[in-house]
This record gives sequence, C-alpha cells and structure tokens, in this order.
Amino acid sequence: MIHKSQSCNARVGKIETVHGCFDTPVFMPVGTQGSVKAVSPDDLLEADVKIILANTYHLYLRPGHKVIKKLGGLHRFMNWYGPILTDSGGFQVYSLSRLRSISEKGVTFQSHIDGSKHFIGPEESMEIQKALGADIVMAFDECAPFPADYEYVLNSVKLTTLWSRRCIENKTNDHQALFGIVQGGMYSDLREMSAKDLVAMNFDGYALGGLSVGEDTETRLRVINETKDFLPYHKPVYLMGVGTPADLIEAVMLGVDMFDCVMPTRNARNGTLFTRKGKLTIKNSRYIDDKRPIDESCRCYTCSNYSRAYLRHLFMAKEILAYRLNTIHNIYYYTHLMDEIRQSILEDNFADYRKKFYELQNKEVS
Amino acid sequence: MIHKSQSCNARVGKIETVHGCFDTPVFMPVGTQGSVKAVSPDDLLEADVKIILANTYHLYLRPGHKVIKKLGGLHRFMNWYGPILTDSGGFQVYSLSRLRSISEKGVTFQSHIDGSKHFIGPEESMEIQKALGADIVMAFDECAPFPADYEYVLNSVKLTTLWSRRCIENKTNDHQALFGIVQGGMYSDLREMSAKDLVAMNFDGYALGGLSVGEDTETRLRVINETKDFLPYHKPVYLMGVGTPADLIEAVMLGVDMFDCVMPTRNARNGTLFTRKGKLTIKNSRYIDDKRPIDESCRCYTCSNYSRAYLRHLFMAKEILAYRLNTIHNIYYYTHLMDEIRQSILEDNFADYRKKFYELQNKEVS
Repeated sequence: MIHKSQSCNARVGKIETVHGCFDTPVFMPVGTQGSVKAVSPDDLLEADVKIILANTYHLYLRPGHKVIKKLGGLHRFMNWYGPILTDSGGFQVYSLSRLRSISEKGVTFQSHIDGSKHFIGPEESMEIQKALGADIVMAFDECAPFPADYEYVLNSVKLTTLWSRRCIENKTNDHQALFGIVQGGMYSDLREMSAKDLVAMNFDGYALGGLSVGEDTETRLRVINETKDFLPYHKPVYLMGVGTPADLIEAVMLGVDMFDCVMPTRNARNGTLFTRKGKLTIKNSRYIDDKRPIDESCRCYTCSNYSRAYLRHLFMAKEILAYRLNTIHNIYYYTHLMDEIRQSILEDNFADYRKKFYELQNKEVS
Repeated sequence: MIHKSQSCNARVGKIETVHGCFDTPVFMPVGTQGSVKAVSPDDLLEADVKIILANTYHLYLRPGHKVIKKLGGLHRFMNWYGPILTDSGGFQVYSLSRLRSISEKGVTFQSHIDGSKHFIGPEESMEIQKALGADIVMAFDECAPFPADYEYVLNSVKLTTLWSRRCIENKTNDHQALFGIVQGGMYSDLREMSAKDLVAMNFDGYALGGLSVGEDTETRLRVINETKDFLPYHKPVYLMGVGTPADLIEAVMLGVDMFDCVMPTRNARNGTLFTRKGKLTIKNSRYIDDKRPIDESCRCYTCSNYSRAYLRHLFMAKEILAYRLNTIHNIYYYTHLMDEIRQSILEDNFADYRKKFYELQNKEVS
C-alpha cells in the first residue's frame, strides 16, 4: 500500500511480479484467446497498459495449454512480456459451454467450439494455469447465476470454498500469485461466509466474483462495500468483469484495486468511443467531415494521427483498421482514467476528481 | 533511368513526386478505400513500402472526393504522407457497379453500395482525382472484357484514346503526374494503335490496362512485350493489377517498372503467406506447435516477433490481429522481392537472381 485516501477507502498500491510491477488501481484489458482483440502487444505498451487478462477456458480449448507450454508459455506465445492474469475458467464454463454436470470433483462440459466433452476441476484449472504461466492465477470457483435463491448460493459458496482449498494445495509455481474468488451472490451473510472461508486460507489477493451478472449498480456497490470489510487490508482486491468508467470510479472509492472488462475493446469494435465528455458513436453522420480527433484532450496514437471523419469512414467501410484504431483509443482512455484516479488519490483529492468526472460526463459530446 | 540490364529489358529507375521519390521496379500495395486493408501507414513504412494505390471509384462513392478534399486531401485523410497513385475509376465502374450505359461522354452506373445512380467520364475522373490529390493519376479508360471480339476492342481503344485526350485537356494540377492506359485486349495491332495514340499525347507514364483479366500468362507476356516497343524508353511503364511474385519477375524482365495487386493483402487475410520457398497455408495443422517464424530469412515485424504456431492460433480463432500480422509479412515479402530485383539489376545478375528464385520456389515449405 502506497497511499490511502483520507476521505474514503480509495487507495494506491503496488503489485510486483516477475514480469514487472504496476501501481493500483489498475485496469486489465481482456485478451480472451491470447490476443487483446484488434491490437498488438506494442499497441498495448504504447497505450500504457501494465497488465492484461487472458481466459483459461478459451486457451485450454484452443490451442491447448500443452501447446502453449511447449512454446514457452503464454508471455512468449503472444509476445507480451508484461504481467498477465489468467482467470480460472470457471466463469466461461458456466456462461459459454453447454454444461453437463457439476460435482464436488469439478465440472464436465461441452466445448462451445466443437461440442467435444471436457472436465475441469480445481486441480485441472491449476494445472492449466501453471502451463500458461501467468503471473497471477485465480482459484476455481462456482459463479452462481443471477438471480439465484439462498439455498443455491449457499451451496455455491461451500463448493467454492472446497475448490479454493484444493487450488491452494495444488499450487506449486512459486512465482505465480494465487487469488481466491469470493462468491455469495447478493446475500450479505453468504458474502461474509465466503470471504472469511477464503481469508483463512491466506490467498495472495481476493477477487469479488459473481458480480456484473445483471444486478443493479446499487446492489453491486452494497455487496462490494460489505465484502470489503472481511478482506485483509494489505492484499489486493479485484472486482471481476467491471465495468464502465463510472463503475470503476465508484468501486475505487470503496477500496477496489484491480479491474478487467471487455467494455473498452468490445465497444471499440462496435464504434462506441469513450471521451471525457461521454460516449461518442463514430458512425453518426455528423462526423462525416469532422477534422477533430475523437477527444481533443487525448494523446493516444489514434487521436494524434486520425480525424473523426477518417475513423467514421473506416467504420462505415468496415475496414479492419477501424477496429484497431478504435481499440487503441478506448484502451488508452481506460489506462489514463486509472492514471488520473491514482494521481488524485495520491494528491488527496479523489473526491474532487470524481465530482469533476461526472460534471464533464454529463455534457454532450460535440 | 538509373541502370538497364545488359541481358534483358529489366531496368532500375527513379520516380520523383512532391511526397517523396522511389526507385523502380516498385510494387504498390492497394488501399482501396483509403486504407491498405488490415494495416496502418506506420506498418507500411516499417515494411518499406514507398508508394500505395487508392481507388477513385471507391473513394468517390464513400466518403466522397469532396469530403476528402475538405479534410486536406487523401494523404492527410489517411495519414500516409508518401506517394499515392489513384486509378481512374474505369476498371471498378465496369467490374463492380451495375453498369447502365457507356457513351462518348462517359459511363452512367449504379453504386455497388446503395444502388444510387452516378456518372463518371474523363472530366469527372480528373476532377475527382484532383480533389483526392494523389501524386500520380490515371487517365479514364474503357477496359474491354475478356474475351472480347476484335470489333469491340477496336471501339474500346478508340474510346480510350478520345477520353485520354480529354483527361490531358482537363489536367490542371501541375504536381500530379498523369499516366495514360494502353488498351487493345490481346490483339497486337490494337495494342500498337492504342500505344501510339497515347504516346502522341505525351503522358508522364504509360500503363498496360486490360491485362490480368483472365488471359493465360503466355498471352499476357506477349502483349507486354509487343506493347513495350511502342512506349518511350524514358517513361515509366506500369502493369496494372499484376500479380504473383513470378508474374512480377517475368514482367520486370520485359521492362515493366510499376505494379499493383491485391494479392499480398488478400492472400494474407485468407491465411496464405509468401515465403522464399513458396506459399505457406497458415491454418495447416502441421504448424500447431511450430516455433519458427513464417520465413526464417524474413526480417519483417511479424517474423521478428511471432511463431507460426501463434499465427495459426490467431487465424483459427479469427482474431483480428491475424489479418494485420499476416498482411505485414506479405507486404514486406513483396517490397523486399522488389528490393532484391533492383539490386540484382544494378549488379547485372538479374538472370541469375531469377533462376535462383525459381529453384527456391520449387521446394516445398517445410
């Protein structure tokens, strides 16, 4: 921990890995299949990205963790030598695959690619993540659907605790940090139970799972706030799958340190671009001859070299370059939002920064 | 002209434009809609590209030449400050649009995008190309279909001559070079007629149009060889829409100086990669764990950083980055093929270079 805000739980910290260290709060772009969609590792470095996330489920199915291990691990495979976090595969097993059955042993499921049958339990998740060689790996959890009744979520928490212990027992790569994932749905007492179970196992960090699954913002912030109290102060807190710029600011205020989300990259490919004044829809006809960059205050590669008019043209013409230029801008927006957030915390004016953020966002993009 | 081969018509020359000069023989990647598909201008510079081609027909329809002019011209619009050649729009009017009618005035056609009705004649083509601001612009021609009977092609040559004269009369931008396009199908005497008609108008360079339209290689080489004799020795000869690496080598041997083709970029997006030993199909399962670059002798960005295994994975997973990395490699292959060709001409061993090229190409890619 470097600095904690005097007025709220927002804090600045530092995380060290063998592939480099980075300051928190941090946003991790998502490289689902070993590539942050539409950009190269050099683009990520130029956009000041410090750490990326890759999906265990996807890489296990294609090209396979054994192939990646043979090729020297995920860093070398994808030519990204900064820190990488891999998820456990749990979330995708539930959300993407045709699920066959869950037992205490693990999950039997069918591949969303070719329907082939597979099994992943905590031991398999750890083995796959060891082969991939990420710097931070996640314990295998069961992410309850939303909404789910109390009984279902209670069992889900118990299963996650059981699996988390087996992940700790199967962790042998010392240079990989292992984070546990707190579940418990929207039930305060189950979140408390899950957090206490995991904290007793002494993970290197703690993630908040089972959020951003359809609940409203108020509920999410309540769960974060309630759960945070049961987590050790000096370990990183990672809110999985969140979110919009405003979501990040609110969660930072509650003490969250790490985030990942497909929002900047997916929105970029859909032509929705983030600016200080809110979202800009690049296909809008008003931009047909607009010489200005996406955001006049942005210093990303895209804003330094291309007009809205050109970006609109590329998007309308379905040129592949559109996806890359848009993605570079959105990722830069997110990394620099986090830079500004950290700076404001260090200067003890995060509350003021937050206020100004909302004031600007409420203006329409001209 | 810098140097002519002692054993054949191959030659090295230099072309100067206000956006820079380049040596010939040169290959121009195709940026149809104001973007060489899947790559950025920086990627082109890194691949040693000296000049690109853009399509008048496409840019006229979208975003419109007036928009591009308002934004400072095509160079600024697309952030490429090297030389640009624009075609006349003629070829696409015939090949892409729903054609309405040809008259001496020009061509009325329907847009392939939205079916809207448009008219382009020589005057309009020159106006559009002036607005785009390319360094080399092409006279508006009629490209006869293949095969076409003698009478049809004769009329096509006469129309092209008529239109070419009106292009010369309507050329007012002094910094733009204007090339005429020789037509005449596969008929030797009509090629001669067309070449003589155009040479009498004193164009800055001469293109061979109406080739690479379905004729066999032998016929194409015959037409090039026969036509070449009627063109002035000290002006550039541009073979439009050609071709494979071997096609380029054969045409260089006959004295051609400039080429454009979608082959390197389109093949890249289809996963077909050029190497010294022939084509490599990246989706082939033999590459699943192949640590080697596409071509071990290649020094492009892709070969310097990525394995065949990773490129195969990206391609199979339909990751956008696949198209960029493949395109960078194929463009680099073409630019460096031309570098080697020029070097061999300067060293008076082009015949030897050509022989070795075929020897290597006949080996299978391992």
